[in-house]
Amino acid sequence: MDAAARLFSERGYHGTSMQHLGQALGLQRGSLYAHIGSKEELLFDVVNQGAERFLGMARHAASSGEPAAARLRALLVGHVSTAAQHLEASTVFLNEWRYLSPVPRAQIQAKRDLYETVVRRIISDGVAAGEFDPGVNVAMAGRLVLSAGNWIYTWYHPDGALSASAIGAELFDLILNGLAKEGPA
Amino acid sequence: MDAAARLFSERGYHGTSMQHLGQALGLQRGSLYAHIGSKEELLFDVVNQGAERFLGMARHAASSGEPAAARLRALLVGHVSTAAQHLEASTVFLNEWRYLSPVPRAQIQAKRDLYETVVRRIISDGVAAGEFDPGVNVAMAGRLVLSAGNWIYTWYHPDGALSASAIGAELFDLILNGLAKEGPA
Repeated sequence: MDAAARLFSERGYHGTSMQHLGQALGLQRGSLYAHIGSKEELLFDVVNQGAERFLGMARHAASSGEPAAARLRALLVGHVSTAAQHLEASTVFLNEWRYLSPVPRAQIQAKRDLYETVVRRIISDGVAAGEFDPGVNVAMAGRLVLSAGNWIYTWYHPDGALSASAIGAELFDLILNGLAKEGPA
Repeated sequence: MDAAARLFSERGYHGTSMQHLGQALGLQRGSLYAHIGSKEELLFDVVNQGAERFLGMARHAASSGEPAAARLRALLVGHVSTAAQHLEASTVFLNEWRYLSPVPRAQIQAKRDLYETVVRRIISDGVAAGEFDPGVNVAMAGRLVLSAGNWIYTWYHPDGALSASAIGAELFDLILNGLAKEGPA
């Protein structure tokens, strides 16, 4: 699965052949098929493991009992850290999952929807508790949080100046406080 | 180029063969090669046109002479509208460009860097003018704006409830004002 995550993230799912996988593992194509069912099963396994990793982290962040801002912060920091720790698998989860055929794709879509629901619930909790502005568009705010976290895979470098959790914290502070000097207009 | 943008966005660059392109255009492979040099040249042309489209829009938004917040708003609204109007080409520009070989890839990277410089300059103008909080991390705020705009290609639907420019405006308001009720902590 590590080899598949690396190859699918570098070359794309369609650009990776069973021969590439065999070469990466020092196995003949025939021996490879003794271990895995098909290239698509391997894609599903990498994508599904990615989905479970993000969902597990989100459930943990959401259930801490802390105020909504602290929970949303933990979720975004956790999201960026998870993506950074498993950069290749996360790239495949975020990018190549769309090449799954309809049934496995729908299974992954359900997990993505669930993740988004967790994010939106924290935001609507924060609005209900008076922590967040009552005018916040909850769905759009959820998308902004996910966009910030998901786009990471295109620019994060392990040797960059900021750690993944520092990046998550800075993005969260921007989303919480905004650019404007005087607060909400 | 329209057919290539559609096929590359649906199937990925590596998942699209010259045969697919020929079928989409009702041309034999041989006739296709009379019109284009190679599949990679076609990828470069689609990606480069996407880069020029985003850069042209950004230069226009940046040079209006309005306050920084209005310029950044115009840029994000323009970004989302451009992505939505050319959804397939933008998907290829944002996603498949990484499969270019080193020299054409560096040409596109330079245009992406220039685009990011335009975004950051508007934000630092806003900080210098006292419109934006002096504590804003300009590079990170630029990435948040780009993340919000770029991730659009994964969730925008032309038949959704909000127009592309309304989505851009709502994302901008969130980035300007933040979620918090009381403004910057």
